[in-house]
Amino acid sequence: MFLKNAWYVAAWSHEIDASLKQVVVLGEKICVFRNSQGEVIALEDACPHRKLPLSKGRIKGDNVECGYHGLTFDCAGQCVWAPGGGRIPSAAKVRPYPIHEKYGLVWIWMGNAAIADADDIIDIPNFDSPDWGINSGDAMELACNYLLMCDNLLDPTHVAWVHEGSFAQAATKDTPLKVTRTDNGVIVHRWMMNVEPAPFYKKIVEFEGNCDRLQHYEVRYPAHALIRAVFTPAGTGGPDGTLDERTFVMDSYNFMTPVNERETRYYWFQLRNVRPQDAELSKMMAHDVRNAFSEDKAVLEEVQVGMTHKTSPHIDLSIDAGQLRFRRQLEAMIAEEQMVDEKMRA
Amino acid sequence: MFLKNAWYVAAWSHEIDASLKQVVVLGEKICVFRNSQGEVIALEDACPHRKLPLSKGRIKGDNVECGYHGLTFDCAGQCVWAPGGGRIPSAAKVRPYPIHEKYGLVWIWMGNAAIADADDIIDIPNFDSPDWGINSGDAMELACNYLLMCDNLLDPTHVAWVHEGSFAQAATKDTPLKVTRTDNGVIVHRWMMNVEPAPFYKKIVEFEGNCDRLQHYEVRYPAHALIRAVFTPAGTGGPDGTLDERTFVMDSYNFMTPVNERETRYYWFQLRNVRPQDAELSKMMAHDVRNAFSEDKAVLEEVQVGMTHKTSPHIDLSIDAGQLRFRRQLEAMIAEEQMVDEKMRA
Amino acid sequence: MFLKNAWYVAAWSHEIDASLKQVVVLGEKICVFRNSQGEVIALEDACPHRKLPLSKGRIKGDNVECGYHGLTFDCAGQCVWAPGGGRIPSAAKVRPYPIHEKYGLVWIWMGNAAIADADDIIDIPNFDSPDWGINSGDAMELACNYLLMCDNLLDPTHVAWVHEGSFAQAATKDTPLKVTRTDNGVIVHRWMMNVEPAPFYKKIVEFEGNCDRLQHYEVRYPAHALIRAVFTPAGTGGPDGTLDERTFVMDSYNFMTPVNERETRYYWFQLRNVRPQDAELSKMMAHDVRNAFSEDKAVLEEVQVGMTHKTSPHIDLSIDAGQLRFRRQLEAMIAEEQMVDEKMRA
Repeated sequence: MFLKNAWYVAAWSHEIDASLKQVVVLGEKICVFRNSQGEVIALEDACPHRKLPLSKGRIKGDNVECGYHGLTFDCAGQCVWAPGGGRIPSAAKVRPYPIHEKYGLVWIWMGNAAIADADDIIDIPNFDSPDWGINSGDAMELACNYLLMCDNLLDPTHVAWVHEGSFAQAATKDTPLKVTRTDNGVIVHRWMMNVEPAPFYKKIVEFEGNCDRLQHYEVRYPAHALIRAVFTPAGTGGPDGTLDERTFVMDSYNFMTPVNERETRYYWFQLRNVRPQDAELSKMMAHDVRNAFSEDKAVLEEVQVGMTHKTSPHIDLSIDAGQLRFRRQLEAMIAEEQMVDEKMRA
Repeated sequence: MFLKNAWYVAAWSHEIDASLKQVVVLGEKICVFRNSQGEVIALEDACPHRKLPLSKGRIKGDNVECGYHGLTFDCAGQCVWAPGGGRIPSAAKVRPYPIHEKYGLVWIWMGNAAIADADDIIDIPNFDSPDWGINSGDAMELACNYLLMCDNLLDPTHVAWVHEGSFAQAATKDTPLKVTRTDNGVIVHRWMMNVEPAPFYKKIVEFEGNCDRLQHYEVRYPAHALIRAVFTPAGTGGPDGTLDERTFVMDSYNFMTPVNERETRYYWFQLRNVRPQDAELSKMMAHDVRNAFSEDKAVLEEVQVGMTHKTSPHIDLSIDAGQLRFRRQLEAMIAEEQMVDEKMRA
Repeated sequence: MFLKNAWYVAAWSHEIDASLKQVVVLGEKICVFRNSQGEVIALEDACPHRKLPLSKGRIKGDNVECGYHGLTFDCAGQCVWAPGGGRIPSAAKVRPYPIHEKYGLVWIWMGNAAIADADDIIDIPNFDSPDWGINSGDAMELACNYLLMCDNLLDPTHVAWVHEGSFAQAATKDTPLKVTRTDNGVIVHRWMMNVEPAPFYKKIVEFEGNCDRLQHYEVRYPAHALIRAVFTPAGTGGPDGTLDERTFVMDSYNFMTPVNERETRYYWFQLRNVRPQDAELSKMMAHDVRNAFSEDKAVLEEVQVGMTHKTSPHIDLSIDAGQLRFRRQLEAMIAEEQMVDEKMRA
């Protein structure tokens, strides 16, 4: 089950050019290309005649021509030419999807186009700030339901076992968590006081000695996460801390696009408040992040199999409170959306 | 759904020798071999005892011996030896299939053997004529239902997009089609007057200048096509044309054998009325035809997926009239055949 | 359908060390490892929290730690640590399986642990005798139901066709069989009098000339076979024979472990009463046996497909009497076991 009235990431902007490509989002096959004005166009990827994917056809000007019988569709999905003497059946059209490019990503709206509003795309305050460095981001395919990755991104505890050599330190094993429900998602966070920085961060943090560390894990509907890591000199952190100019902050943005119920395309990038222009640092971080996320992938793909074919009941623990709240609220939103859809059809 | 009381191509004659082979026709596994008299024998490919394919066994004289316990079957499918003291259970037999070799092809009758008549095999008038050249024919596996290839062979329009570099020319895009129902199938044809020959034919046609071109697309039940291409000097063609000695004719014979509902083995050869003894020309044409048919394969396999998993209705166009008639009539024939079968069982 | 209250072979002892491995028996995924006392431990291979296989985790002392959130299980399957402040939910446990090592094999009990009794493991009288040589045994995966191999091991007839170059000789084709039902299985046997030794045995038997040959094929519940081959000088064998010091005996032990309904792991070793210390002979026999068993594998995997997808009824022959009795009795035992289980649940 998916929330339809929402923006999902369809691709990195640099992946889309003037050639026809197929992407699959929420189980729907979509033909994507960049037209002569540089706009990204997204159309249902099936000619209404014999369902050949339009992505197997050709671009003609700003139109797409089917590779079987030449039916031609404009950027709004309307058929503008068909063989057989020029009559175009009224049903000869394909569904167009609203598209908006932002943060180097191609965002697609999967629901009612009439209510698509680009202002609803997640806000990333420091994206263009010269004081923040960025690694250029990446993506990977996960053979699991997107909610398993949402669970994972509301779960600071798992780092102690899954990311033993990178994000973990002793305190990540069992420091208590705080769960907060917000208007657009759920936050799970905790401060770990006077601890050693974890290996991944030790290389980057610019002060000596122990730190206070914040894990802020936030997932917003439908499936977008902000993971904020704060490392500040011991004594300056905590809920009432003052921080200072040495405080290190990394914001990891994570976008889960359901391909279908069993597959997810996972996109991400990170912003950091240190050495913003340091390309070597960006590269190293991108590399380390991908390695760490591959550790998540290995676990989640096994969990997908285990939960799908379980032969005895599973149990929930207190550390799951955040993800259970997120799932419950998302389910309610999906149910409401479907009820509205049914009413509008009736 | 398949028509059973019909001849299908099981193999090229040169593919069958004194070794045991398995072919699959209409979902039925069949053991095929050539006996000592040179006859092709076809038996249900499953020993009645433990269902080991007979094709995994051995030829003993003109009999087939199962590779598990030695049950031995004669060319009529009757068990002539079984272990256990020599008693042969009355149920120990396998179904034999009527076979007839013609045109270098092995034809198999899939229905009631009592009404198999080799005279019903498609008639190919010029097959042995010294005035006609032949390319030796070929076959390929298609991952699609056989009716999609039947559709394609009643569809002169598709050549403009699928065979842009070979069979197509401007006029193939939208010259109107004529549909005729015959006693044994459907013909779709059109004359294109005073046009340039398409690339594939330009190399072969023996006159200069423009031509009148006929596309004659005919499919006969169950699934056999004759595609006749005529290129004649402009002014000599058309429905009332006189043609002349420079007229080029190519008859392409196409035989679709359903392996099952999702797979087809596709056989073909061509006859031409020019340079009958020119082996180089035969070779070039065979090569070009295979390339063009690979273009069909690529499209049809995508159409198979698209039509099987479509998420919105498909539409028919006026150019589909011929294939819709063919499918409707074939369906009626299959329904009638099944009704007769049920009555005979009752 | 499987008999649960029975010992199956889970692995060769030498396959299990201090690393975590997954085995699948009767469709159940099981995490297996050797603890610091050298005992083999077998636990349900799914953490009760999110069903990550425990075999993807880590050994900590004699406990197993889940690789996702560190839930830790002792050798009895009880959770002894969980994140979230140390409270351990009462449902946090995994099923432990009784294990016993014997004959170099790891035996696992798949049913009610309360009635597991290592004395029920098959008795192999000459296993440790200095007068008997052993080849070290082997295993292979079969893509078929375990009962097809049980059938095969109650079927002396098949050797004439499946093992033409090794175990077969003319008499194996059709000498009558005797079937005996025992308390724990079925025996099919026959004496072939005054025959030439079959190729596999000719190399080993230590007398010249013809022999009397016994094929003793015995399968015991759930799925363990003893195949005894006796070759004795002609005139010394038969039901009332006296045998003598030149008599050659080979006991082939075969253990079928159902992975699931369509896959089997097949284990075996042989004991012989000649040249017990001859390592070269052991090696040659192991090699020849593996080759012969590969012939069975090829046939049985085809039979699995043929019997699963048969399009006409199969027939039984008189040579199948033993295997039909074995199957009928095993089915009755399984049905009774399930009835008892249901009563205990009610």
